[in-house]
Amino acid sequence: MNRNLTDVRGFKVRGAHIGIKSKRRDLALIVSDVPASAAGVFTRNKVRAAPVTLSARHLENGLAQAIVVTSGNANACTGEEGEKAAQAVAEKLAQELGIPVEEVIVAATGVIGVRFPTDKVLKGIEYNVKYLSSRRVYGSMVANAIMTTDTFHKESFQSFKLGGRVVNMAGIAKGAGMIHPNMATMLAFVVTDAAIKPALLKQCMNSVTERTFNMISVDGDTSTNDSAVVMANGMAGNPEIVKKDEDYRVFHDKLEEMCRDLAMAIVSDGEGATKLIEYKVVNARSEQAARKIVRTVSNSNLVRTAMFGRDPNWGRIIAAVGRAGVDLDPSKVDIYLGASDPVQVSERGGVADFDMKKLRRILRSARVNVLIDLHQGNSEAVGWGTDMSYEYIRINAEYTS
Amino acid sequence: MNRNLTDVRGFKVRGAHIGIKSKRRDLALIVSDVPASAAGVFTRNKVRAAPVTLSARHLENGLAQAIVVTSGNANACTGEEGEKAAQAVAEKLAQELGIPVEEVIVAATGVIGVRFPTDKVLKGIEYNVKYLSSRRVYGSMVANAIMTTDTFHKESFQSFKLGGRVVNMAGIAKGAGMIHPNMATMLAFVVTDAAIKPALLKQCMNSVTERTFNMISVDGDTSTNDSAVVMANGMAGNPEIVKKDEDYRVFHDKLEEMCRDLAMAIVSDGEGATKLIEYKVVNARSEQAARKIVRTVSNSNLVRTAMFGRDPNWGRIIAAVGRAGVDLDPSKVDIYLGASDPVQVSERGGVADFDMKKLRRILRSARVNVLIDLHQGNSEAVGWGTDMSYEYIRINAEYTS
Repeated sequence: MNRNLTDVRGFKVRGAHIGIKSKRRDLALIVSDVPASAAGVFTRNKVRAAPVTLSARHLENGLAQAIVVTSGNANACTGEEGEKAAQAVAEKLAQELGIPVEEVIVAATGVIGVRFPTDKVLKGIEYNVKYLSSRRVYGSMVANAIMTTDTFHKESFQSFKLGGRVVNMAGIAKGAGMIHPNMATMLAFVVTDAAIKPALLKQCMNSVTERTFNMISVDGDTSTNDSAVVMANGMAGNPEIVKKDEDYRVFHDKLEEMCRDLAMAIVSDGEGATKLIEYKVVNARSEQAARKIVRTVSNSNLVRTAMFGRDPNWGRIIAAVGRAGVDLDPSKVDIYLGASDPVQVSERGGVADFDMKKLRRILRSARVNVLIDLHQGNSEAVGWGTDMSYEYIRINAEYTS
Repeated sequence: MNRNLTDVRGFKVRGAHIGIKSKRRDLALIVSDVPASAAGVFTRNKVRAAPVTLSARHLENGLAQAIVVTSGNANACTGEEGEKAAQAVAEKLAQELGIPVEEVIVAATGVIGVRFPTDKVLKGIEYNVKYLSSRRVYGSMVANAIMTTDTFHKESFQSFKLGGRVVNMAGIAKGAGMIHPNMATMLAFVVTDAAIKPALLKQCMNSVTERTFNMISVDGDTSTNDSAVVMANGMAGNPEIVKKDEDYRVFHDKLEEMCRDLAMAIVSDGEGATKLIEYKVVNARSEQAARKIVRTVSNSNLVRTAMFGRDPNWGRIIAAVGRAGVDLDPSKVDIYLGASDPVQVSERGGVADFDMKKLRRILRSARVNVLIDLHQGNSEAVGWGTDMSYEYIRINAEYTS
């Protein structure tokens, strides 16, 4: 089987069923043998679940040693009781591992507004800590344990050289699962045995998140529980990265590669998605402007339904560009569809003379590339989205509590 | 039949089929016997159709005497040729009526990025100007002629007193019709025989639009062609409204009532809509904040699919509130569903103890009210949206060119 979290030096994991869900795994533990540099990015939603608030606070010192994730109950909109529950979970794991509570990161996903089953979780932690292991099959079990309506678990692994030493990096993620009354929650956890100063790891994670997790769109909603956390325990023995040198750049690129890989897996498993669509905006006045346009187009229900219908509907694309809130001249915009041999559908804001047969072939593919050339600057951005299908409505409407 | 545009003094209309569409009416003319005060609001999309640019320019002097609307071709993304076409249409009608070209307003809706059939339209104008009439049946024909995928035409009429005189006001609108490769275009035209200064009519129309047309959501996309225009020809003989006095306030309220009526008709005919949902946000820090929240919640695909599924999914509502980009304390938010005898589903940001059976009854209704009480200010806003159904996907995906 593929390498995973368990192939990173000094990490042990455990994924188990403790009864939050009726049958499937619902507890994930990821523990480093030693304290690790750690950084996280969390939802921008003003409504933040209790575990998010707690984890953001615990990461202020840039250190962590353990992550505990529960799936099936998000512990969101649960008030003071929910905060106490998150605290109790962190304390329990800290106690079992003999580490400070501040080094425990807590995450949750599942129904919101429902009382968190604290007792079950505390008992589950106590029981499962004994089975932490670096057996490879446990890595997949952990990836599996954080899922909600995901149809497959998402993991990624890579190794590369830093300062002459082989460094390992692995990640898991879960995506856009919406079961009543929950929203799409995205969770991602990356662990590496590289040595890097906490402050730099934080900067690196922020930069990478902007270009990866923040550039995917499944339905435009932002969850109360979104969290992405990285831990670097230094056990690879590379010279610690302490400034933005070549080693930092390598590490940044590798972390970006991994997060992009996880982000695209999340999109591909988007509810009811039949297509993965890559949007690239080039020659924009700023990277921020390019990102705004990517997000607006990939979130457009009209673009998404047209993609599902394989409809060469470039008018919907340029209209979404126009309402992105970016200052631009529409009469300069070119649009291309397709990857290696794309078809130009719009030229200078107007209709281009294109080969409809070829375009139809491109739109039948499970992967579609959209290139939007603004011709008014030098900046660019890339993002990923899905089409919108009947299945999307079924998943999100047919659950009746 | 109901009173309509033709019951407003000094207005004549004509709706006809001139061959832009294969069978249905596609030309609408609305003409005042005398020059009228006029004001318009237009799409904020950076990609503006040629008729929008032209009409905005023609309204700069605050006067207009005629409106010509074509349906079936939006004359958008058609470049310089499109601009010439819009100009030619305005000139033709001006010439036929013997009025200055600046007093002609042009609007269009339909496919975009397709060459505008100028010759057909010019011939159509020439032929149909002869049949301008104030026969009541012509009013409905005009309302009908501006439709695209609307399933019914939308018209509204009211009369009221201003300065001791009976004033009439009538409006027509079309809604969210999306045919390849077009987007939802909203058009609304209101005519009245009230006398009001152009500058005040403009302020009034801007204010009313913010509270009506800008508070409806069918799918979150903004068209290249959205236009709402009001003409007031003064033939009621009321003392002209020249300042913000009691007469102005009455006129404002009546215009708001009419625009709200048309806006709600547009929403009710939203593609695939099975429910009309009214969102009210109260006790917000500012009206702008309240509006932002109404728009975010009513645009949320997750809220909309839950409404379609009759799923008492208040977690999706509060999560949308949280991501509206408004500074707020989620732990103060109460949420109620239902109209006359509502059910409180969330109390102070957490789950409320509610009667699920009663809530299900409320969600089965074709009209659902959502009240969001922020408890952190004195401002409020109201808006309207629809649910999101399989039918929405079918309409928007299944057309393949």
